[in-house]
Amino acid sequence: MINQKNMQLGKVRSVIRELFEYGKKRKEEVGEENVYDFSLGNPSVPAPKEVEEELKNLITETNPVILHGYTSAQGDFNVRKTVSNYINKRFNTALTPDCIYMTCGAAASLTITLNALLNDGDEVITFAPYFPEYKVFVEHAGGTLIPVQSEQNTFQIDFEKLNKALTPKTKAIIINSPNNPSGVVYEKESVKKLCKTLAEYSQKSGTEIYLISDEPYRELVFDKQTEVPYIMNYYKNSVVCYSYSKSLSLPGERIGYIAVNNEQENWQDIYAAICGAGRALGYVCAPNLFQQLVARVIDKTADISVYKQNRDLLVSALTEYGYEVVKPDGAFYLFVKALEPNADAFSERAKKLNLLLVSGNSFGVEGYVRISYCVSTDMIKRSLPAFLQLAQSYKN
Amino acid sequence: MINQKNMQLGKVRSVIRELFEYGKKRKEEVGEENVYDFSLGNPSVPAPKEVEEELKNLITETNPVILHGYTSAQGDFNVRKTVSNYINKRFNTALTPDCIYMTCGAAASLTITLNALLNDGDEVITFAPYFPEYKVFVEHAGGTLIPVQSEQNTFQIDFEKLNKALTPKTKAIIINSPNNPSGVVYEKESVKKLCKTLAEYSQKSGTEIYLISDEPYRELVFDKQTEVPYIMNYYKNSVVCYSYSKSLSLPGERIGYIAVNNEQENWQDIYAAICGAGRALGYVCAPNLFQQLVARVIDKTADISVYKQNRDLLVSALTEYGYEVVKPDGAFYLFVKALEPNADAFSERAKKLNLLLVSGNSFGVEGYVRISYCVSTDMIKRSLPAFLQLAQSYKN
Repeated sequence: MINQKNMQLGKVRSVIRELFEYGKKRKEEVGEENVYDFSLGNPSVPAPKEVEEELKNLITETNPVILHGYTSAQGDFNVRKTVSNYINKRFNTALTPDCIYMTCGAAASLTITLNALLNDGDEVITFAPYFPEYKVFVEHAGGTLIPVQSEQNTFQIDFEKLNKALTPKTKAIIINSPNNPSGVVYEKESVKKLCKTLAEYSQKSGTEIYLISDEPYRELVFDKQTEVPYIMNYYKNSVVCYSYSKSLSLPGERIGYIAVNNEQENWQDIYAAICGAGRALGYVCAPNLFQQLVARVIDKTADISVYKQNRDLLVSALTEYGYEVVKPDGAFYLFVKALEPNADAFSERAKKLNLLLVSGNSFGVEGYVRISYCVSTDMIKRSLPAFLQLAQSYKN
Repeated sequence: MINQKNMQLGKVRSVIRELFEYGKKRKEEVGEENVYDFSLGNPSVPAPKEVEEELKNLITETNPVILHGYTSAQGDFNVRKTVSNYINKRFNTALTPDCIYMTCGAAASLTITLNALLNDGDEVITFAPYFPEYKVFVEHAGGTLIPVQSEQNTFQIDFEKLNKALTPKTKAIIINSPNNPSGVVYEKESVKKLCKTLAEYSQKSGTEIYLISDEPYRELVFDKQTEVPYIMNYYKNSVVCYSYSKSLSLPGERIGYIAVNNEQENWQDIYAAICGAGRALGYVCAPNLFQQLVARVIDKTADISVYKQNRDLLVSALTEYGYEVVKPDGAFYLFVKALEPNADAFSERAKKLNLLLVSGNSFGVEGYVRISYCVSTDMIKRSLPAFLQLAQSYKN
């Protein structure tokens, strides 16, 4: 018998993918312009122009044996130096290149970190709504994911619920801010309180609890006053899992990094375990060309003003139509309260209007749908009558 | 406590890497030209010129949102179609795009396949000498690696030893031909006999045994008459793990694929388990730019004539100096009998002459060293006096 768990994982397409595939078919039936597909989190703005330029420069100017050759498993030294310097300058940390491990994107950052930290039977807390793959990643690493519901309406951390969920088996907490699917950013006070709670519990129980910050959306914040606190400034036992997928609009190229906080005593052991986990999972090194590229465009981002425009358009229209929306501070998702208790049924009714909204159930929260607004502003404008019609259908 | 097994894996650098790092230091001390570094399997010839051209074309001509966007998890459909068509034409198979899963290179192909097939406690046989990471990959997937010694001197399969190693727990066999580290290619008769042995044992024991063919060196064969049999033509329960690292000299870009033989009854289940394992390990998709690239240069290889020249030069010189060498048919490795029983001691003595040869102990065979001849021919020429001196040091 082959591995049944992985077979099931492969057979059950995620709800998101399922809806996306439906959308592709539906477009063939009724025309591309008549389907409003808000299913996927695939960046809709191109990479910054520097990406194309620097890719061409690298290919033209570098000896191909070097450019396409192996880097060391943790990544090219100079690339890691550029990354650590950049983090230090921006967040006032004192990381060295040996705190950085280059990865094939955020998912790899997370699986490698989880396999480095977890032993069988460990528990990992995350706050719902959460990215569904967390469960898959934690379970493969031998752990159990413990989702803790966030505060209703604000989707900030519910500390009463967190306190109840902490146990001596808690090895790590994954936070994701800006959040997929809610777009919520954790406020500084909330982050401080989280770190204090974990530190106190660690001390009381005599176990280390690691804080893993999953940060693919760090750069996607739309208002000047919104600050995304850097976790290392508040908590020693912390690891940042970063990805350039969304900030540089390179999701298919798989490039990111893990940064280990060197203020924790055993940071070198953690880094070694990350190197070991990377080996065991088959990650030889992150793609060399894209390692070199990100070092050259380290402070660039794609033009995220389109996302802000989309957010503002959707939030104001949906609010006007009577939907309850938590205004997202970042990412490119909107988590909207379904107009009936059953989000699956709501999503189905929306589908009849060719409006593809992902039911929030798979994100661990009932009664909501996720709208990915990394789409063309024009499609959003065309979709508004369908949103209105959907709302009205519940009033009759 | 963090994961101790992965921490150890990360701390213990492989013997190969250790020697390579020593070489870098030694070069600083005595000059680059006086160190003969045969440690790493890093291609020394550049990618074919079509790689640079097509990379530039792709970057210039393709919409970046598409070019750098996610592909489906198993890989872009058209890329998979190109790959399956190419395999079918070349090896007379009838694969469809849905038999192909694009990966981040050979290591990822193997870890994903092993996690798809294995359950805890399963055994995986391989033939020694073998690539040391097999043990790491198999153990992470919950299995135990069972190395079976090859025939002395020829390094072909020893069927008596194989028969003793087969048990009802045997889930898979990994073969690697051309072989790292011996360069040996399994002859057709040997492959046929292997397949017959496995089929008979499967039937007798009522268990399926999967044949995994690890093929990063398939294209690196130097003589016209040397044929590398395609495993799907001989055995139903088979999976091919391929990589473009060596054939296109792109080892740092991490691009390869898994091909599932669709002649086996449960091939769709295996493919699903591969998709599931890929998810669990954090492989979202193989790098999109390099997926598109390999589809455009599917029948190209780097100029491997340099490797042939290197092989011939080394084999004839070392034989003349009194070394026992199995002439390799492919890859870019030479497995040479140490001039004393202890290969570690032999490697140390060679090191004193600035000759960096990897002890074969970590490949599961005692009394040999591995020479990676993916180096400049000029370095080989300069190294010959040291090889001679090393041989003479054992005669005095």
